[in-house]
Amino acid sequence: MKSLNNEWMGNDVLDVLEAIKSRRSIRAYTGEKVSDEKVRTLIDAARWAPSAGNIQPWEFVVVRDPVTKRKLSAAALDQTFIEEAPVVMVVCANEDRSSWRYGRRGVNLYCLQDTAAAVQNMLLAARALGLGACWIGAFREEEVERILKTPKAVRPVAIVPVGHPAEKPRAPQKRSMGEITHYESF
Amino acid sequence: MKSLNNEWMGNDVLDVLEAIKSRRSIRAYTGEKVSDEKVRTLIDAARWAPSAGNIQPWEFVVVRDPVTKRKLSAAALDQTFIEEAPVVMVVCANEDRSSWRYGRRGVNLYCLQDTAAAVQNMLLAARALGLGACWIGAFREEEVERILKTPKAVRPVAIVPVGHPAEKPRAPQKRSMGEITHYESF
Repeated sequence: MKSLNNEWMGNDVLDVLEAIKSRRSIRAYTGEKVSDEKVRTLIDAARWAPSAGNIQPWEFVVVRDPVTKRKLSAAALDQTFIEEAPVVMVVCANEDRSSWRYGRRGVNLYCLQDTAAAVQNMLLAARALGLGACWIGAFREEEVERILKTPKAVRPVAIVPVGHPAEKPRAPQKRSMGEITHYESF
Repeated sequence: MKSLNNEWMGNDVLDVLEAIKSRRSIRAYTGEKVSDEKVRTLIDAARWAPSAGNIQPWEFVVVRDPVTKRKLSAAALDQTFIEEAPVVMVVCANEDRSSWRYGRRGVNLYCLQDTAAAVQNMLLAARALGLGACWIGAFREEEVERILKTPKAVRPVAIVPVGHPAEKPRAPQKRSMGEITHYESF
């Protein structure tokens, strides 16, 4: 096993449990580019998430254009580290795909869960590749829709800047196992 | 690397990208028990998911009681394989934790995404342990709330039966990379 730090350089095999525990939200990036091949690996990992009825209600927008990145940063309440990442992935929920089969529960629950599972896969894959990424949920959705020219019923649900890590955040405080675990019932 | 099949027995190191791709929804289980230690590993993996503002709006109910499992199966539209699993994890979103900081967006988006990321970690950890699991979203929420005596504002969002796999499903059909990938905008 590799040690639980951010020194992982993306070679060799990274154990899944270790990847889960050693992944951090990375908000500072070196100037190094992220190859198209690595971007494809991230999306490929994302699409192997499970989805309700195998509907796969996800769309991925790969943004490298500096002007578009700047606009996305602004739409995300001026979280300027977004535009500093070499590539920004915008994950969208295709509500039509979920609603035709599952109605309101599809739109309000399943397509959010399915795309969130895809984002988590993407973050873990980034970790495996030695990249740093951050899941951003705080943004003005309509502004992002205009920037990316999303079709009707395609909703941006996460912005994920990706680059080579230029910081090594410590592990966040976590609620204890005892606090979050309940046996048989509450 | 291990081969991409369901023969993984939970020893050694399982590469994260391979775990992502080789994980399947498992709906048939052998009679073998799942140890408390493995259950704890699943929850530990889940709680290492990221969450908006590190709010960690998740609660996990571990159900082994046959009567409770039967009730959960019934609430899940009679998906009877649920009660056949040795252990059933019910993942809940603690809406209070998200709403006090983020209001409606916290309740309607972040706490669903955060718990979904936790479920995905749990599924990948199950894979790493040689276990089989299935993410179930189709159930009557109020019925599950009554069964588990959830506090107000604690919403069940996923039922995850876990056991040792007694089936080897083939990979599901996936939308192509070209269909789901968009460059710069739609």
